[in-house]
Parts: sequence; C-alpha cells; structure tokens
Amino acid sequence: MEVVPSKTNSSTTEAIPMNGGDGRNSYANNSSLQRFLVDRSRSMIDEAIANYLDIQICPSSETFRIADFGCSVGPNTFIAMHNIVEAIHLKYRDESGSTPEFHVYFNDHTSNDFNTLFVSLPPEKPYFAAGVPGSFHTRLFPKATLHIAHSSTSLHWLSQVPKEVSDINSPAYNRGRIHYTDAKHQVFEAYSAQFAKDIESFLHARAEEVVCGGLVIITLPANPDDAPPSELRTESLFDILGSCLMDMAKTVRAQFTHFLLVCFRWEEFVLLNA
Amino acid sequence: MEVVPSKTNSSTTEAIPMNGGDGRNSYANNSSLQRFLVDRSRSMIDEAIANYLDIQICPSSETFRIADFGCSVGPNTFIAMHNIVEAIHLKYRDESGSTPEFHVYFNDHTSNDFNTLFVSLPPEKPYFAAGVPGSFHTRLFPKATLHIAHSSTSLHWLSQVPKEVSDINSPAYNRGRIHYTDAKHQVFEAYSAQFAKDIESFLHARAEEVVCGGLVIITLPANPDDAPPSELRTESLFDILGSCLMDMAKTVRAQFTHFLLVCFRWEEFVLLNA
Repeated sequence: MEVVPSKTNSSTTEAIPMNGGDGRNSYANNSSLQRFLVDRSRSMIDEAIANYLDIQICPSSETFRIADFGCSVGPNTFIAMHNIVEAIHLKYRDESGSTPEFHVYFNDHTSNDFNTLFVSLPPEKPYFAAGVPGSFHTRLFPKATLHIAHSSTSLHWLSQVPKEVSDINSPAYNRGRIHYTDAKHQVFEAYSAQFAKDIESFLHARAEEVVCGGLVIITLPANPDDAPPSELRTESLFDILGSCLMDMAKTVRAQFTHFLLVCFRWEEFVLLNA
Repeated sequence: MEVVPSKTNSSTTEAIPMNGGDGRNSYANNSSLQRFLVDRSRSMIDEAIANYLDIQICPSSETFRIADFGCSVGPNTFIAMHNIVEAIHLKYRDESGSTPEFHVYFNDHTSNDFNTLFVSLPPEKPYFAAGVPGSFHTRLFPKATLHIAHSSTSLHWLSQVPKEVSDINSPAYNRGRIHYTDAKHQVFEAYSAQFAKDIESFLHARAEEVVCGGLVIITLPANPDDAPPSELRTESLFDILGSCLMDMAKTVRAQFTHFLLVCFRWEEFVLLNA
C-alpha cells in the first residue's frame, strides 16, 4: 500500500460530544442559549458576507462549499447554515445574476449523533448536505476546498483537560474543582494555554482547507481581558456544581471528565431560566 | 427566502436501510457475500481505472472525489474505497509523479446507521471522509463534482414495491408472494419496470454529478436474459421464505414491506452456508 498517510488522526483529542437524540436531556432540546447566539450574530455575519466575501473565489458555475464546525445534532446548525446560504445567495444575485450550487458540511466529533442530525435535516434545504466526523482541531477537508468555515459556540470546548490540573505534583493542581473560576492563577494559565494550543490547531487546519479569499466565521463566548476569573458571572454556578459533582464522583467512583460536560449543560439551563 | 429550491427531496422513495450497529443481526456481521463481490470485482475495477481513467480530469493539485452509493455501515465500503484509492494513486504515481488529496463520500439512506459507519472508519485512511444521507435515486451532490461514482451490490434494491403487485385489481397482483419468481409474467414485468425507472433515476442523477470523463462503477447481481425467472436458483428460497413471512404477517398484522428486507438477508445467509 503506497497511498499517502492520513492527516485526520484525532487520537490525541478527547471526543465528548453533546447529548444525542431528541429526548428531554438532548442537546437538540437544551440549546436555546446557542440558538440565541446564532440569532444575535446573524446581522454581523450578513454584513461580513456582504462586505468581505469576494464572489470571484467561486464562479457561479462551480460549487460553493461551507462547513459548520461543531454542529452537534441541530436544529441550530440548520438555522445558521440557512442564514449563511441566504446571505451568499443575495450577494450572488446582486453581483452576478446567477448563483452556484451549495454543498454544506456538518462537522462534529466522530461519536456525535449524526443519525439524529441527518433525519432532522430540513427536507427543502437549498443545499446538498454531508456529515464530516472528526475533531475540528485536526484536518478534516482537502486543501483549499472550503469557501466559508463557520463555528458557533463550539470553540470554547477544549480538546482535553490540561494535564497539570489533575497532576497532584503540579502548581496548577486544581483539587476539588471543575473550572478555573476562583482557583489559583496557575490553573487559569493552564486552561488558557490549552485553549491557545487548541485555537492554533483549529486555525492551522482551516488555513489549509479554506480557499484564498474565503471567510472564517467564529462565534465564541468570551470574557473581557480586564475581568478576573473570580468576577465571572458563572463563578457561583461552577462552584456549586463542581462541589456536587465531586461528591458524586466520590460516591460512584465515576470518571471526573464525564461530569465536566454535564456541568456546562446545567449552567446553560440555569442561565436561560434565571 | 429566495434561495434555490432543493433537489434532494426523496419523499417518493422508501427508506429501508440495512440493519445498523455491530450486533449479531447487523449488516456489518452479515455481509460476507457482498464482501466476496467486492473482492471478485477488484481486478476489473483496477483495470478500468488503469485503462479508462484520464487523470487530466483532476490535476494533482486539486481534490479527487469518490462516492460510494449504498455504503451501508461497513466494513465492505471501506475495503472498496481503499482499493479504488490505491488504484488511482498508482495511476497518478506512474503518469504524474504526484497524487491529489482524496475526498471519499459514503452515501446511504438518511436512516442508515451513519453513527456506526463513522466510528468504524479506518483510523489511518488515505482520504478525507464524509457521509451523505439520502436516496441514490435522487440528486445528492452538486453538478460535476465527483470523479468516480461507485456502487456495489446496492442498485438491485428498488425505491419502492411496484404498486401493481399489491393492487388486487391489477393483472400484476402478486397475492401471497414476496417476489416475482414463479409468479405471473405481469408481476415480473412490474418489478422489471420499477427497476428500469430506478436505474434511470440513478443514472440521470449521476450524469449531473460526475465530471466529464469521470467513471461510474457498478457491481450488481444479475441474471442472464435467457434465464426465465422460474429457473432462478433462489426460487425455492423465495417461495419458502415468502410463505413463512406471509404467515407471520397474518399473525402479527405487521406491514408486508418490513418482511421483505429480512427475506433478502436470510437468503444471503443460506447461500453463504450452503
């Protein structure tokens, strides 16, 4: 066998996708906050496409390719892709008179519930659809094939828990906590370094995959530089939930990482219902 | 909303995929006959690629796109795609010196078990992978994007049971049977007409999707023109199974179409163990 080696190995990343299906605890039924952010960012994305997209990168006789990184199981990803396709369509209509066909790629972890995603696809969607399994911290597409790379409320998920925070001999050891809020500065630094590494991996991969002149659109929860972690509004939530989860972990001897995911879901739920 | 209408609506087709998962009754563990056909057709496919593929259709700086229509859940589709990628790689190595990157699309019904397919993907695959949900009797890809369209042991599955065979007022009414073996000539004609309609839909869709000069590779079980249906080797199997299934249908009042799929699986199992 002399074929080229794979560039899609993601064994170094932890695959912990959102809850699949469409049940009570599914992402599909617990992602109103993410939907809110899709809606809030729409006008900015429309404006970016209107002002910065150069339609010369894809003649209307060719295929316009868009990928949503960290799509989960819907319905938010369908709304985001619909909005983007519509904005591009308007741009082509105004400037070219004819519109290319669209190929939209839905990406998430290999263990994401793609079955639910696929059966939920809008029946009258204005694009051809494909699912792309794998970590967005690695290469997922051939070189220079995407015209728009999009990711909404996904890039804050780290590829792994920083090793130092669970190393008892490290100054960043984060005993009894699940987050960096109100923890030692070294803990914050450890999470921050992991995020820097992850976003670099993401951008390096997309730099290969997106055509010259294409757009990368990222919606991401963030904090101001001058706001110390201890002043984050989510602090008390993380502390209470972290304490509960640590007690549960002691009781059932379950793995810590399993609880981390739950914590974020609960936080979103509480915020929405506050 | 002014975007172009979808061309991927497959509401007119019946989506009855293979059994998912990797359990005892799964397609993954009951598809040795299909694997046998992949192996038997390999040398012919290698030869077709060596002799008929014009590498000018895809410069090595671009992406070579291959789709497997009716992939089910593996592992046969991975073997077929590996063989094809390897043959193309050799062709490029000999004629160009450099090889394009490969994008391989795995297609099957929307209700196919893509979750199992994705977690089974070979970790060191020499291509980027995507799943494409939908009936291969409809358009699934943008115009002129595929360089090779492949389908193995899939196109004999009809998009629907011919209406006449379950219409008591039709001369093709096929009372008490699940197949055309040993049935009236009108029944054979009804199935034959449905197949002609389906293969035409498949080829029309691929004609739009495959680039000029691309290859369409189909492996399909078939019977000689001069062999009457009543002389098919599978006749007795269909008769016995059909009789059992009709009895079961009467007992549990289940839908007839649910049993048709089981019948084919049993037939393959019996053939392999004969």
